[in-house]
Amino acid sequence: MPRPVTLFTGQWADLPLAELAPLARSMGYDGVELACWGDHFDVDQAVSSRQYVRDKWALLEAHGLTCLAVSNHLVGQAVCDAIDERHRAILPPDVWGDGEPEGVRRRAAQKMITTARAARALFDARPGAPRATPPVVNGFTGSSVWHAVYPFPPTPQTYWQKGFDDFAERWLPILEAFDQANVNFGLEVEAVKGHRRFGFNFDPSHLGYQGVDYVKFIRTFGGRIFHVHMKDAWWGHGDGSVGVFGGNTSFGDPRRQWDFRSLGHGDIRFEDVIVALNDVGYRGPLSVEWEDIRMDRVHGAAEAAAFVRRLDFATSGVAFDAAFARRDDTADR
Amino acid sequence: MPRPVTLFTGQWADLPLAELAPLARSMGYDGVELACWGDHFDVDQAVSSRQYVRDKWALLEAHGLTCLAVSNHLVGQAVCDAIDERHRAILPPDVWGDGEPEGVRRRAAQKMITTARAARALFDARPGAPRATPPVVNGFTGSSVWHAVYPFPPTPQTYWQKGFDDFAERWLPILEAFDQANVNFGLEVEAVKGHRRFGFNFDPSHLGYQGVDYVKFIRTFGGRIFHVHMKDAWWGHGDGSVGVFGGNTSFGDPRRQWDFRSLGHGDIRFEDVIVALNDVGYRGPLSVEWEDIRMDRVHGAAEAAAFVRRLDFATSGVAFDAAFARRDDTADR
Amino acid sequence: MPRPVTLFTGQWADLPLAELAPLARSMGYDGVELACWGDHFDVDQAVSSRQYVRDKWALLEAHGLTCLAVSNHLVGQAVCDAIDERHRAILPPDVWGDGEPEGVRRRAAQKMITTARAARALFDARPGAPRATPPVVNGFTGSSVWHAVYPFPPTPQTYWQKGFDDFAERWLPILEAFDQANVNFGLEVEAVKGHRRFGFNFDPSHLGYQGVDYVKFIRTFGGRIFHVHMKDAWWGHGDGSVGVFGGNTSFGDPRRQWDFRSLGHGDIRFEDVIVALNDVGYRGPLSVEWEDIRMDRVHGAAEAAAFVRRLDFATSGVAFDAAFARRDDTADR
Amino acid sequence: MPRPVTLFTGQWADLPLAELAPLARSMGYDGVELACWGDHFDVDQAVSSRQYVRDKWALLEAHGLTCLAVSNHLVGQAVCDAIDERHRAILPPDVWGDGEPEGVRRRAAQKMITTARAARALFDARPGAPRATPPVVNGFTGSSVWHAVYPFPPTPQTYWQKGFDDFAERWLPILEAFDQANVNFGLEVEAVKGHRRFGFNFDPSHLGYQGVDYVKFIRTFGGRIFHVHMKDAWWGHGDGSVGVFGGNTSFGDPRRQWDFRSLGHGDIRFEDVIVALNDVGYRGPLSVEWEDIRMDRVHGAAEAAAFVRRLDFATSGVAFDAAFARRDDTADR
Amino acid sequence: MPRPVTLFTGQWADLPLAELAPLARSMGYDGVELACWGDHFDVDQAVSSRQYVRDKWALLEAHGLTCLAVSNHLVGQAVCDAIDERHRAILPPDVWGDGEPEGVRRRAAQKMITTARAARALFDARPGAPRATPPVVNGFTGSSVWHAVYPFPPTPQTYWQKGFDDFAERWLPILEAFDQANVNFGLEVEAVKGHRRFGFNFDPSHLGYQGVDYVKFIRTFGGRIFHVHMKDAWWGHGDGSVGVFGGNTSFGDPRRQWDFRSLGHGDIRFEDVIVALNDVGYRGPLSVEWEDIRMDRVHGAAEAAAFVRRLDFATSGVAFDAAFARRDDTADR
Amino acid sequence: MPRPVTLFTGQWADLPLAELAPLARSMGYDGVELACWGDHFDVDQAVSSRQYVRDKWALLEAHGLTCLAVSNHLVGQAVCDAIDERHRAILPPDVWGDGEPEGVRRRAAQKMITTARAARALFDARPGAPRATPPVVNGFTGSSVWHAVYPFPPTPQTYWQKGFDDFAERWLPILEAFDQANVNFGLEVEAVKGHRRFGFNFDPSHLGYQGVDYVKFIRTFGGRIFHVHMKDAWWGHGDGSVGVFGGNTSFGDPRRQWDFRSLGHGDIRFEDVIVALNDVGYRGPLSVEWEDIRMDRVHGAAEAAAFVRRLDFATSGVAFDAAFARRDDTADR
Repeated sequence: MPRPVTLFTGQWADLPLAELAPLARSMGYDGVELACWGDHFDVDQAVSSRQYVRDKWALLEAHGLTCLAVSNHLVGQAVCDAIDERHRAILPPDVWGDGEPEGVRRRAAQKMITTARAARALFDARPGAPRATPPVVNGFTGSSVWHAVYPFPPTPQTYWQKGFDDFAERWLPILEAFDQANVNFGLEVEAVKGHRRFGFNFDPSHLGYQGVDYVKFIRTFGGRIFHVHMKDAWWGHGDGSVGVFGGNTSFGDPRRQWDFRSLGHGDIRFEDVIVALNDVGYRGPLSVEWEDIRMDRVHGAAEAAAFVRRLDFATSGVAFDAAFARRDDTADR
Repeated sequence: MPRPVTLFTGQWADLPLAELAPLARSMGYDGVELACWGDHFDVDQAVSSRQYVRDKWALLEAHGLTCLAVSNHLVGQAVCDAIDERHRAILPPDVWGDGEPEGVRRRAAQKMITTARAARALFDARPGAPRATPPVVNGFTGSSVWHAVYPFPPTPQTYWQKGFDDFAERWLPILEAFDQANVNFGLEVEAVKGHRRFGFNFDPSHLGYQGVDYVKFIRTFGGRIFHVHMKDAWWGHGDGSVGVFGGNTSFGDPRRQWDFRSLGHGDIRFEDVIVALNDVGYRGPLSVEWEDIRMDRVHGAAEAAAFVRRLDFATSGVAFDAAFARRDDTADR
Repeated sequence: MPRPVTLFTGQWADLPLAELAPLARSMGYDGVELACWGDHFDVDQAVSSRQYVRDKWALLEAHGLTCLAVSNHLVGQAVCDAIDERHRAILPPDVWGDGEPEGVRRRAAQKMITTARAARALFDARPGAPRATPPVVNGFTGSSVWHAVYPFPPTPQTYWQKGFDDFAERWLPILEAFDQANVNFGLEVEAVKGHRRFGFNFDPSHLGYQGVDYVKFIRTFGGRIFHVHMKDAWWGHGDGSVGVFGGNTSFGDPRRQWDFRSLGHGDIRFEDVIVALNDVGYRGPLSVEWEDIRMDRVHGAAEAAAFVRRLDFATSGVAFDAAFARRDDTADR
Repeated sequence: MPRPVTLFTGQWADLPLAELAPLARSMGYDGVELACWGDHFDVDQAVSSRQYVRDKWALLEAHGLTCLAVSNHLVGQAVCDAIDERHRAILPPDVWGDGEPEGVRRRAAQKMITTARAARALFDARPGAPRATPPVVNGFTGSSVWHAVYPFPPTPQTYWQKGFDDFAERWLPILEAFDQANVNFGLEVEAVKGHRRFGFNFDPSHLGYQGVDYVKFIRTFGGRIFHVHMKDAWWGHGDGSVGVFGGNTSFGDPRRQWDFRSLGHGDIRFEDVIVALNDVGYRGPLSVEWEDIRMDRVHGAAEAAAFVRRLDFATSGVAFDAAFARRDDTADR
Repeated sequence: MPRPVTLFTGQWADLPLAELAPLARSMGYDGVELACWGDHFDVDQAVSSRQYVRDKWALLEAHGLTCLAVSNHLVGQAVCDAIDERHRAILPPDVWGDGEPEGVRRRAAQKMITTARAARALFDARPGAPRATPPVVNGFTGSSVWHAVYPFPPTPQTYWQKGFDDFAERWLPILEAFDQANVNFGLEVEAVKGHRRFGFNFDPSHLGYQGVDYVKFIRTFGGRIFHVHMKDAWWGHGDGSVGVFGGNTSFGDPRRQWDFRSLGHGDIRFEDVIVALNDVGYRGPLSVEWEDIRMDRVHGAAEAAAFVRRLDFATSGVAFDAAFARRDDTADR
Repeated sequence: MPRPVTLFTGQWADLPLAELAPLARSMGYDGVELACWGDHFDVDQAVSSRQYVRDKWALLEAHGLTCLAVSNHLVGQAVCDAIDERHRAILPPDVWGDGEPEGVRRRAAQKMITTARAARALFDARPGAPRATPPVVNGFTGSSVWHAVYPFPPTPQTYWQKGFDDFAERWLPILEAFDQANVNFGLEVEAVKGHRRFGFNFDPSHLGYQGVDYVKFIRTFGGRIFHVHMKDAWWGHGDGSVGVFGGNTSFGDPRRQWDFRSLGHGDIRFEDVIVALNDVGYRGPLSVEWEDIRMDRVHGAAEAAAFVRRLDFATSGVAFDAAFARRDDTADR
């Protein structure tokens, strides 16, 4: 049975869900991964009002859509980040507040706990038979040491450790809340180990251009892959004047060494990705996170849905040489 | 006129031909290359009963299918092989007998002679106009020296020669029988020269991962290519822990350096293959030998039929600069 | 709005336009780029007879086709070339005359002036609203120094300069005529600077196999790209016995290092081409110049039209992270 | 005349210059690029005591060494950086002071002005004939926006502009001091335009692994290359689990996507570098910045000196086909 | 301290050791890895005569050579192999006997036990201080299932298992003898796990052309690498008509896909090999197994010794940024 | 025995041979390949004066040099070329005459006949034992159809044939003269078949950048390779704005796609070249034709001589597994 093909709504937050839902359907999607911003999914309302979540389902079902995950990258990012003015634009006003960094971080952590509960409320209200596996919240976690990624001044391992300790202190209470809600958390990219609610929202686009072996990633972390973002990127198409760190260029600048591309227009080897996902037994949704500064998004997202469907072939139940092996039995008949 | 697209039935021997025929049609094939095992094509019945071969044609025609070749890899392989217990599973009981190696080899040789005659009987009974070229039996030949492929202990050229001599002694009588039956024999992979009934069933999948230039192969042996298997493979997708000799891994193991893949999912450059086949004037069937441990076979074989059709473009009758060259004539009109 | 997909009629000059027009339509084209030979477009008749150009439009419109450019490669080539017997086959008799080289060159120059006027006449008669940009005549210019491309005997820069001077002397009067006619001239391949009517008919197939960075070419000469030929080539598919200069081989010879191929069957990276054309704001036609000695031309040209349409995706009006950035506004609503 | 081969002393600051100087000579160097830390070059003493700089020259000359540049990366880095605890380890105590960020930045700026004057004092005291070109101080500049290199939260161009403005405000007074001292400033890596004292200390190792075309860099900024660091790096030798951003790994970790390597052991194409430096007319020193966590530094730095000498071939005064061209003159003699 | 560079004497067995020893010295080697054939090292004499081993040492020392390992590939290979006539040429007469396969295998096993004891006798008699690590015997093990490397007829995992069981039964007693003798056994290529005396004689030449990641091999099996053969190979230099399995060609045939080459003339990336050996802490000999059908062996082996010495750079005791980090301390002095 | 390493004197024609000879010796050469221009070798004097050729040998011997070939590229080129003003600079006045093309061609042909006789006179006068193989004259042949290398206007095969016919008519009498003189003619690059005096002066630099497989060339034409030019080239190092045809750029222009380089600084795989030359049994000189616009020629030519010596390893007399194979014999001793 092919996997559901869903659309992550984050890049479409300028459209109300009531507009986006029929569009998603017409572009060929089976469902959505709801962003916790715009009017797509408000976690505060979800925990306080059963009607709110029922209305969401009614809207989705009216357009033949399902939902298998929610996503709160923006607030998650603020939990550990060194907060600066750029965060104001991406945070809800009640998390930003007065912008004092530590206060922002604490309110963001609280909001993530709410998100776990909101996801539980949403999926408890889901019409039809319950799913075998827990729902997923995807997100970033932020980092207090990301600015030190290029190690000059020399960055000792103790410095990194402080970042990990800070991370553990801030996120463990959140993950406990996820556990109580029976919801998984799917981190994009960075690895943090240990808590059983902590796994990955696998996204090859971030790994490929950095030279990380994203196929090996799937095989290494198989059981901890809770969700998959289908997103493409290309690299090596710039003019050689801007490196992989991106210089100060915006996305779409032709000088860039790498950029996000619509599915099938980039350099990710998706054939290898799907084989590896099959091998590790991933059965969750293939969620299109569509970003391509160069293409009309409706054109691109429709094309992407078709691309994913073509890619997601059914796996074999038997080995092909079984027919040979059974040969004498057959001959005996 | 495009070439017929056929399905080799060897990997489908667990299905009776009566089930496979409508399936092959619905997956988009023009015909089948019948395996001489399962109930697909019994060479003994074919030589003794005209009704048997008429029934085959009736069944095929009922589903709009043709047949252009039969295939007896398994028995052919036993003609020269060092027989061991693994052969029991792939040989018919009357060839295996008591399993004494030399006896097995002799009975296999006799069965190949019968196969030539059976092919003649089958194609003599073919409804409609006769084909311009003789029918083809595809197969392996086995080898008494294959176990020495890695030359340690050092393998002198005299040792190889003994293998070739053994081969000639065992196969020349078989090929004489093919000549009498006006049937060609299409060997998969290995080259043996000299007899006019001996040619190739070209299959790029075996050659590509070994580093053999399969396009050059077509151009070198052009006139001796009697049949073509369309089969894909990939290589260089493993994890570096298993080499091209395959270690002890089974197909589908992600550590393998190479594996068979459904058409279009591997690394064979089929554009170069089809251009070369056009250049040498090959006009026979393009027969899909479908093997991909990772994919549902009905999904894959249907996709493969469409893939071959898209690939098999019509060749040009004229040079494109003819329009330029004829220019003054036109202008004179 | 996608760009119009047109067919260059040069390779179809053996067919009268009355036959070619319905064929072009059925193969999927929006229009044609008319060759000034065969009976496709006669520049002398076009300047002398309004009825002639009206009849052309009537014929095109009857088949739902438009026209956005005309092409006179053959005569343009003769303006500067060292004329030899091979030119006779490609020139109209009144330009060839007695074949005396300087006379041929002068008559060719005069014919190019006529071509500018003929293009003006044609596009003045175009039914419907006028286009925002001037029409284009595509062509070659010839060269008095091309035979010295491989610099032995040593070719001093002064020798090249003589070629450039010759070029300027012969072409400036022609370009003045283009200016008076408000028509652009699109040169294929070679760069000549200075006159505002002089630009490029960009064709990646000529550049790719030579190792020229055709994507960089677009970004460098953006505003001077007046027309685009969509044409593919492959290279590195020969057998190593013939180099990039082509030896004495004809197109289609399997030993060749390079050859023209139907769109999508070669090695041009069209994804990079279309992104670059989008970036420099090219909005003109994508005109298929179809040449593939290996393929039936109707099969190939139909496939090519579909290929170009799939490639020519709509560009984005907004940056994809705009949805993130607008996030608080949305939340404030 | 080959260029002088010098050793940057920064990685040898644990050795007093009196120990390092004979070692540098024995490893094959012509001179040193003095680091402004350890006891190698103290800028405060240099501006206050003529004896101090005379003693430096006496020490260097005693070991047959010259000096063509000084380097103050560590203090320069602090001028614009967001200061954190890691800077304490790399800054002199009088610059660090109480560690209050803005104070650190101001004191660092003041120290860079002193560095310009110290360089002037040093090179004024140089024995022998004066050099034609001004001396060079190499260094970093720091950046107030480097932590935003990965643009999430979305980083608008206005944000980058604030960083550039901050940079200009802090560095312009420093560059004025350089101008008064007739000393050039050679920045490693990042581009900042406009002031005539501002140029580059070209170092291919930082550019190569990021995918920047370092040969194109030389040709683009030819005249602004004030100094050259010869330093190698390799990339693509990791195990695919760590990307180009480096994860949290230390140098030398086998999982890393890239690392610094001793000259000739990495992936920089130095043949292309030296040809480009020849083409743009760079005649300054080739200064070895030796860093390879995997190799004994004395072994490596000696090997590196020999490597650079072999690489730095003399350029031709004449074109090689001149001998052909002059042929008839010779024949006439 | 650099590792000793030794010469494996197997390819020089036509020379008596008394001739080979001075030659090895003059070609630049520190010692030899003695082959247990020719007159180089007779295991029967070594266990029965103290004088025999003392004479060996006297001969080696007279030429300034040491010995760190012995090698008995030929006899080891016979322990599990399917014995055929080719083994006669490589086995001593007392092992071959009447050639009856099982008898040959048993006598070979017994000879390997003797080899362990002979190695102990040899190294007990070694002049000077004892080495910290046990001596090594290198060798092959043979295999009862190697002929099934290409899995047709289909080779089930149970079939492989029988091979492993056979291996265990035959080799465990031998390894027990090695344990009693305190000698390690270094297998070339194939992996067998479990016994603490069982490890690898790492040889990249066998792994590279098969597509095995030989650098990853070192990092995976680090502690079990008992010995290293420095041997090069090239691949992809044939003419495309013979694949990686070698066809029936002899070494040196220009059609071959791969071949052994003198060190530095092939495609093994030895820089990566030496870095990995440094990382896993291998401190044993680098033993040149010299095989290149194309080159005079004295020329080649001398060049190879120099190649290995240049490659085997000393590793660093400290991180290169330590000099930065210690900076303030220095400044404080 | 290694092959003699010689220097082609064509690029040094500005130096009298009396100056060049000691320089060649000091740069490490064993001999020279004399150019028939400058004062290096005057063919008219050589046929008329025994003293002239004796003096040449005396000069060469005084500097320890030998001579194995002479070269007359410039005059040979004029035999078939379409003569233009550029030829004047490269031809001797008595060949150029009044410059009337056909007259120039005839006089050039006569001069080539003289060259054959002059070579015979030179080598007859050679001191010491005679060589086993005939001497070689290297050269170009010119071509009447080279200007048509890019086939537009379309170039029919009949057009090429005319060029071949012209070539045969002009060169057959010259080759007859070579036969009478017992001298071979070694053509650079282009293939012409049939006459036993006609072979190749193999030069990989011309073939590599064009994409010709120069290793296959050696294996195909083995017995007809009369002489070898060691010359390197690089390609793919330009900036993408100039293609392989060279545009109008001069050598050394950084935009060029390819250029000649000093030996070892380019992209020719000389390891493969030397292996192939060994395989076909070529035993003649390895003659350095040194051209690198970027490098001082004395520096470069000395480096090139050392490069060739290092490359030209002695071949093996025996197969390396012979030592294994002889093992039992040895054991029997």
